Amino acid sequence: MTIPTDETHSPPEPATTHAQRPTGVQPSRIVIQYPEPAVDGGAYPIKRCVGDTVRVSVDVFRDGHELLRAVVRHTDPDGNTGESELERIDADLAGVRWAGRFTVDRPGVWRYTIEAWTDQFATWRDELARKVAGGQDDLSGELSEGVVLLRAAAEHSADPGARALIEHALAELQDPGVPETAKHDTALGDELSAAIERDPIRHGATALKEALTAQVDRLRARFGSWYELFPRSWGGLSGVQRQLPVLAELGFDVIYLPPIHPIGETNRKGRDNALTAAPGDPGSPWAIGDATGGHDAIHADLGTEADLRSLTATAARHGLEIALDFAIQCSADHPWLTEHPEWFHRRPDGTLKYAENPPKRYQDIYNVNWESPDWRALWDALLAGALHWVDCGVTVFRVDNPHTKPFAFWEWLIKRVHEVDPDVLFLAEAFTKRSVMRHLGKIGFSQSYTYFTWKNSRWELTEYVSELAWSGEQEYFRPNFFANTPDILHEYLQHGGAPAFEARLVLAATLSPSYGIYSGYEHFENVPVRAGSEEYLHSEKYEVKQRALDGPLLPMIGAINAIRREHPALQELSNVTFLQTGNDGLIAYSKHTGADTVICVVCIDPYQPQEGSIIIPESLGTPPSFTAHDLLSGESYQWRIGPNFVRLAPRWRQAHIIEVQR
Amino acid sequence: MTIPTDETHSPPEPATTHAQRPTGVQPSRIVIQYPEPAVDGGAYPIKRCVGDTVRVSVDVFRDGHELLRAVVRHTDPDGNTGESELERIDADLAGVRWAGRFTVDRPGVWRYTIEAWTDQFATWRDELARKVAGGQDDLSGELSEGVVLLRAAAEHSADPGARALIEHALAELQDPGVPETAKHDTALGDELSAAIERDPIRHGATALKEALTAQVDRLRARFGSWYELFPRSWGGLSGVQRQLPVLAELGFDVIYLPPIHPIGETNRKGRDNALTAAPGDPGSPWAIGDATGGHDAIHADLGTEADLRSLTATAARHGLEIALDFAIQCSADHPWLTEHPEWFHRRPDGTLKYAENPPKRYQDIYNVNWESPDWRALWDALLAGALHWVDCGVTVFRVDNPHTKPFAFWEWLIKRVHEVDPDVLFLAEAFTKRSVMRHLGKIGFSQSYTYFTWKNSRWELTEYVSELAWSGEQEYFRPNFFANTPDILHEYLQHGGAPAFEARLVLAATLSPSYGIYSGYEHFENVPVRAGSEEYLHSEKYEVKQRALDGPLLPMIGAINAIRREHPALQELSNVTFLQTGNDGLIAYSKHTGADTVICVVCIDPYQPQEGSIIIPESLGTPPSFTAHDLLSGESYQWRIGPNFVRLAPRWRQAHIIEVQR
Repeated sequence: MTIPTDETHSPPEPATTHAQRPTGVQPSRIVIQYPEPAVDGGAYPIKRCVGDTVRVSVDVFRDGHELLRAVVRHTDPDGNTGESELERIDADLAGVRWAGRFTVDRPGVWRYTIEAWTDQFATWRDELARKVAGGQDDLSGELSEGVVLLRAAAEHSADPGARALIEHALAELQDPGVPETAKHDTALGDELSAAIERDPIRHGATALKEALTAQVDRLRARFGSWYELFPRSWGGLSGVQRQLPVLAELGFDVIYLPPIHPIGETNRKGRDNALTAAPGDPGSPWAIGDATGGHDAIHADLGTEADLRSLTATAARHGLEIALDFAIQCSADHPWLTEHPEWFHRRPDGTLKYAENPPKRYQDIYNVNWESPDWRALWDALLAGALHWVDCGVTVFRVDNPHTKPFAFWEWLIKRVHEVDPDVLFLAEAFTKRSVMRHLGKIGFSQSYTYFTWKNSRWELTEYVSELAWSGEQEYFRPNFFANTPDILHEYLQHGGAPAFEARLVLAATLSPSYGIYSGYEHFENVPVRAGSEEYLHSEKYEVKQRALDGPLLPMIGAINAIRREHPALQELSNVTFLQTGNDGLIAYSKHTGADTVICVVCIDPYQPQEGSIIIPESLGTPPSFTAHDLLSGESYQWRIGPNFVRLAPRWRQAHIIEVQR
Repeated sequence: MTIPTDETHSPPEPATTHAQRPTGVQPSRIVIQYPEPAVDGGAYPIKRCVGDTVRVSVDVFRDGHELLRAVVRHTDPDGNTGESELERIDADLAGVRWAGRFTVDRPGVWRYTIEAWTDQFATWRDELARKVAGGQDDLSGELSEGVVLLRAAAEHSADPGARALIEHALAELQDPGVPETAKHDTALGDELSAAIERDPIRHGATALKEALTAQVDRLRARFGSWYELFPRSWGGLSGVQRQLPVLAELGFDVIYLPPIHPIGETNRKGRDNALTAAPGDPGSPWAIGDATGGHDAIHADLGTEADLRSLTATAARHGLEIALDFAIQCSADHPWLTEHPEWFHRRPDGTLKYAENPPKRYQDIYNVNWESPDWRALWDALLAGALHWVDCGVTVFRVDNPHTKPFAFWEWLIKRVHEVDPDVLFLAEAFTKRSVMRHLGKIGFSQSYTYFTWKNSRWELTEYVSELAWSGEQEYFRPNFFANTPDILHEYLQHGGAPAFEARLVLAATLSPSYGIYSGYEHFENVPVRAGSEEYLHSEKYEVKQRALDGPLLPMIGAINAIRREHPALQELSNVTFLQTGNDGLIAYSKHTGADTVICVVCIDPYQPQEGSIIIPESLGTPPSFTAHDLLSGESYQWRIGPNFVRLAPRWRQAHIIEVQR
């Protein structure tokens, strides 16, 4: 739509430039500051999903007593604009905060800004009303001012009906035969205001110096159930394809495959990370590349590009998508080492430097040299690889250790891929400093691995989820709670048996909109390579397993995935409220979206029964008394605002996922 | 000084520009974010006084594991630069915060930025140390890398001694006859590190996108004791001049005079704000201008420009300065109304609009029209007026109602005046929304009136001072606590008698580095024009009084002003700690600067004795037991960390101002 303004002031210049005598139009008298949501003052986009409502708030004020109006204006990725009115949300004298909202209905980069102006008619009307109320006589001067404003409004009005109404009022105000009190009534009447409001003059309109941006993604960027599997343990790509109907029935959304590329022979790791591989050992999929190819090739044992295209197409038919690993390191046999020696760090003595973080050594892989003089070609080659897999139907990348590669590279790569396909998602596997993890979110990663695996006590979970949901991070950092990974078998799972696996499954799947498990979880696999290690014994990273979808936890997984799909409350993060339980062995929280309220109670203790009183506060908005329907057991209880007794016992019932029935 | 860098990367561009393939040098791998102090991310300057230390902190991190270095670089108003090292303040794995400091030693606008780079030598040395410690053999590849780094360091080094040392190490590392362990010792030795540190290569150096700014003022911008008087009640300007020796002896710093210009005759207000003046009524000094002149003229009854120059010069000799009122409104008789009719708002019917805020009316004054087409000439005229008074020796302006004039005007005016004389101070008299008051501070006002007058209970004072001192406002908003003004006689003073005046004096003078009283305070003047009003009966705004410096509170005022000068702790705001008293009738707080600790205890109750236990926490840093010397009574007590009994009684002793003697 077109925004009418009678004059457009530039926003105030930075403080240092005002010392010169102003030229051109007078700087705006309106200050617009502290818009929310905004990441680092607008330096980075906020993240939203298609269909979300963006709730905006902002300070708007000016000198003097004039009345203001403000709108939020948005521009969608196709350049269409719209706007909606802001309202003051603290209407007392000290109030300068305004709020409004708009909905984002397609993916891509949206822009939004705040525009504000002085409402001269409303200001005049307000003063006149106070004078009339105060019994002030002779307001002819005031009425003559009103005539000027109405004349301008009539001229400006694009709506014939409104214009006629304004002109009628104008005529009355100028008619000497009309008594002054009648003129007051007309001037102060709601009809006249409404007519002018239809297309108001934006006097001294000003906007934020720079528009804010929102990266809008499809829903899967926020909400999805992930299953990780090594295709070599499932009969290769076609073997995986045969599992898709069952995986779909289990309610998974994303099937994530570790690297599917050829694996180096030189310095290949043996079973259990042995320094020397035995004959027949397959090596780690993260040691990418051999004589047959590198990042754009598929391991011969797994299948062909045609198999991959068939896999992604079949997945799509089942509502599933395939995530590939994006790992940049190269084995000693990767073609790039000979084709592009300049991409690798070579010592003055000519030797190549394998990856290490002393005293740890990764003898089977070499890192690229990001400071290579030929870095542009390296960036381009990596982009080409990503685009090749996108062309094969891959829609998600799980990025291995992005925090050891330049931020600027990722920012560039993600944007370039999004230019080709805005629906591609990037999951950051960065277990590092919080600031670095946050930064990866800011520069474009759709979602991120988290510290969930190491948050096992009630206070740890509450603190961590509160930080993710409420610290500001929620604007740009989307968590994916993996309950296990090929690298992380937490001691809680090692010792707690099946109840521990059930508890962590429910926590991951209900606290975070995105969650995942790595295959074996459903079999309660819990033996570490040695005491004190989080590595699996006989890790699948270094050997081939025989896998099948027959683990005893699958029915519960399928039930929970179904519950997640049916309940919008479980598809969001920041709608969480932690509840008192009176027992640190029980954690309880509510999630609430629209008419949907889900209350989860999890027994964190995998050994002993735990009981407590779940306190439902009035603020949850439930009825005073309601049916609490446990979606896991199918049982129903009568709950109420206030304390509700709960007893959970390992190997009998580890958790409730309760639907509040109204 | 010159900053050596081996290459200078541009800081990262905004997120939206990375999508194109990068050209030129690779974007920096270092992120510098969230620098403090900074007002609105650097949009406005922080405020400091000459001699202050600016304590800086900032997030600095990069991808990977390389070690970083960082400095804060500053540029003084004359263009001289300096820098000082930052140190990591949270040294654990998650740490990204660095801190440092620099001192500002002259007034004007300072700039400061953060520069960070990768320390390649330290990174190499750290890895080597870990490998040596891990017993890794054959580190010849590592040593060959070291040779390259040392060669670059030697070439780069500007210090002959350091260079020789580096070259010596270099020769040793390359000497096949030296055993490898000896090479390790040399490479890891502190001498070599120190030599390289003397002039390190700044690999991949990057800085904040935009430098931050600090407005550095003379100390009076923060610290001063103000006395307000109407010169017409003291025998005009020369009468005031005769009072200067006594005012100086009383320890005042600033003598503030309401407008000294001619006063309009038309619609002149009579005594007690009567609509009609009686013959001989002098009118309000804020109704500026008559036939003899306006904003650049002096009221004939007060004296001449020569008298004013004599007053300011005499004040300067006594260490005092003269503050003038800066009020922009005009009486109906102001020459500008005829000379520049376009500067005023004229209705379509030709009438001028006097100032009003319905139902309040100010029939004796007209506001200028800031939206006049000729606004530039108006701005220039107001600037010329200010500069004229600066030329007469005026060093401070108390600005009347700045919040009803355009912010951009003030920003411009203050900068222009500072171009002529950076020592001129501006006090904002804005009692309005907090956001607007803060904004006036951001755009340049040196200090501001506050809500102190209406903060009378213990919790109100604690909350309000905490906000001023700790909310972030302290970086740009300097309070001036006036205990009364010609407009504000709070009911606490109306009812509380002399004890109330004593309590409020001590609170104003010890909570805020700048404070003031309006004459009459020392006489306990406390009669309002009517019950429920904060206006004085027989207000000096509308009549001439006979004033003399003989009020009974003056000895206490003089003593407090002397204490303020002797104690640096009372010259700062954010060094305050509120103490427990166990009694809401007693407020206690400590102020601590360097070796100076002052503890104030004030009986807020003006009617009844109050007693309580002042808890001295260990964190104050006092000795376990110390002499508490009351600077008001001269008595000393033995106090200790923990509870200390205090009893204060109106009309006997209203407050302690205790010096902690070590």
